Amino acid sequence: MLKKNRLFTPGPTPLLPAASRAMASADIHHRTADFKALYQRVLADLKVFVGTQNDVLLLASSGTGAMEASVSNLTSPGDRVMVITAGKFGERWRDLTKTFGCQVDMVEAPYGETVSPDVVRAKLTPETRVIYMQATESSTGARHDVKAIAKLVQGTDTLLVVDAITGLGTTHFDVDGWGVDVIIGGSQKALMIPPGLAYLSVSERAWKRAETARHPRYYFDLRKERKSAAKGESSFTPATSLIVAMAAAFDYIRENGKGDLAKGRELLVDNAELSAAMTRAAAKALGLQLFSPSSPAAALTAIIPPDGLDSGEIVKRFRDQFGAVVANGQGDMKGKLFRIAHIGYYDYIDTIGAVAALEQIVGELKAGHIEFGFAVRAAQEVFARSKADRSVAHV
Amino acid sequence: MLKKNRLFTPGPTPLLPAASRAMASADIHHRTADFKALYQRVLADLKVFVGTQNDVLLLASSGTGAMEASVSNLTSPGDRVMVITAGKFGERWRDLTKTFGCQVDMVEAPYGETVSPDVVRAKLTPETRVIYMQATESSTGARHDVKAIAKLVQGTDTLLVVDAITGLGTTHFDVDGWGVDVIIGGSQKALMIPPGLAYLSVSERAWKRAETARHPRYYFDLRKERKSAAKGESSFTPATSLIVAMAAAFDYIRENGKGDLAKGRELLVDNAELSAAMTRAAAKALGLQLFSPSSPAAALTAIIPPDGLDSGEIVKRFRDQFGAVVANGQGDMKGKLFRIAHIGYYDYIDTIGAVAALEQIVGELKAGHIEFGFAVRAAQEVFARSKADRSVAHV
Repeated sequence: MLKKNRLFTPGPTPLLPAASRAMASADIHHRTADFKALYQRVLADLKVFVGTQNDVLLLASSGTGAMEASVSNLTSPGDRVMVITAGKFGERWRDLTKTFGCQVDMVEAPYGETVSPDVVRAKLTPETRVIYMQATESSTGARHDVKAIAKLVQGTDTLLVVDAITGLGTTHFDVDGWGVDVIIGGSQKALMIPPGLAYLSVSERAWKRAETARHPRYYFDLRKERKSAAKGESSFTPATSLIVAMAAAFDYIRENGKGDLAKGRELLVDNAELSAAMTRAAAKALGLQLFSPSSPAAALTAIIPPDGLDSGEIVKRFRDQFGAVVANGQGDMKGKLFRIAHIGYYDYIDTIGAVAALEQIVGELKAGHIEFGFAVRAAQEVFARSKADRSVAHV
Repeated sequence: MLKKNRLFTPGPTPLLPAASRAMASADIHHRTADFKALYQRVLADLKVFVGTQNDVLLLASSGTGAMEASVSNLTSPGDRVMVITAGKFGERWRDLTKTFGCQVDMVEAPYGETVSPDVVRAKLTPETRVIYMQATESSTGARHDVKAIAKLVQGTDTLLVVDAITGLGTTHFDVDGWGVDVIIGGSQKALMIPPGLAYLSVSERAWKRAETARHPRYYFDLRKERKSAAKGESSFTPATSLIVAMAAAFDYIRENGKGDLAKGRELLVDNAELSAAMTRAAAKALGLQLFSPSSPAAALTAIIPPDGLDSGEIVKRFRDQFGAVVANGQGDMKGKLFRIAHIGYYDYIDTIGAVAALEQIVGELKAGHIEFGFAVRAAQEVFARSKADRSVAHV
């Protein structure tokens, strides 16, 4: 059969066609009135997408650039900080904060698990200047409890910084209600456009801290970026084509919400949740184990391959037979799990297709030991139930 | 008449259509074998485009990110450095080096002029760790003498870092022959693709310095990026769509060089030189003054508006009547000059069109005082002469 190239990876995710088209004709200069209007609109839409009244700033970098910004702008050498980690991206917080000379209290859970808020409470001190964590650990498919951690720092001087690069658009957050000081996103995730833009919201408490932080910073100087944003500009040449694409993505999400971007964002989260639930049900029907069973994320499903097989074999068969790119494990987890994404531009047909392909592959690997259709049926049943639930809810 | 939108700005420059098309369908994951092959090809092509045997690294950022990298990776707090400046981008070097705690010796020339190598020689000390300069100062249209400055640091311990963001692809450099330690480029310039990627070459001397530099650095840690590049990867999520576009741009430049990318790069420089020479001749025929008459760059021509007019009026008429975006002056020079670009994807028809539009605008502003056609004729004569020169040269 024909094979269409399709990404089932948790970033970059499949491109929104309207965003691709917009990007391809983005012959625009960044110091024109047209671009300024577009930039202001994108910054305003980002606030709605993040769901905050705080400033949201846009940076021409990968998500890691915004992570660095939230260390270099909010800490000074020797500051005590806490890093919550249960995977590769948590370790990035560790490396970043150590690079910037922080005294780091590590709160770790094994890969695939999440850190208990009780453990965080026990380790939190009045000297802890910032807690750094992930909303979703993309390397394991686990979702951390941001709300519970946020509660622990309420009324204290500790800031909470959340890498939600895969969390935004796949989790319902109440950024201001919970009191999240900084939340970080990336373009190549739920926003359905290519990598190259990072964005982050910054609370008033965080701005106060930024005034006293002593690290040298220039390209990622958030104070400077805030001033530029207030004038509808970026401090440095913005990644124009990606910003044009982002505007198109917001138009699409808003249209799905019938003109309401916040509603569209909620539906996008629900969409990821449903795709994830369908995929988890299918994996279960196939007798496969999730890598993060206790707190699975909606952004992606990490699955352990059957019978001690190398997950690379599954990844390879997805690609060779079905043109589908699913992600292998990263670092130490390479060969031990594979990851199917639900973040962004995935629909029923994509999800069912991925589930059926997985069933096909497992069928080959266990020749004669499985009957086809059970995994797909499990996913279909989840879909049918969700429609029933919704029709009840809306009656 | 119809008005097509056209950029005559020195970055972003007009998009190469083949690169736009490639970018729009860049549904690619960065940890696949396909992308790795593409990334390695782009890194190899960048070396040829820069014209160096040194490592060339690619960063997901604006050009300023690579400027910061060449400060944070090559200096330590308190280091004595020299900044050569004659415009807004020179001042960025000053701000960056001061932000990173360097003792900065400033060597300044008035806007529109260039710094004499003799002045640099007089101020250079054995303690000067790095000289930072521009190849072309995009804010004034002046070209600095990189070769002469490079000669001054030969055999010394002083590194030379050149921001050639508008210089690469518009100036013939001999990076290794002259001994330029770091040369910096950006995607939105001669490479004819959108902003969002920076690149820089790093000499062995510079790598040695990077080992001892003491600034904290993570996103722009060149040592880490070098290790990743050696494996055909980037340290952090790369701006995939722009890298796909860059590969298409190199294909185009190579094709122009009949399969030889270095030859194609030389022709691209010659193209900018010719477009610039045509535009300068036209400006002269109109009785207009260049802002940088003594050392005009090929990347752009900065022109002083006639009779004390505000250059914003010229910029506005270009846009309103002809759909053409030319750049106003930046900062203090706003209103005092306008800039027409030649960097990247401009041909004869673009150049003549811009010149004719300028003549039209000046004709309106000086109603009855100019006869049409002289500016265009002057540009045509430059073009005809260049063909004659070339046919003689090749006989």
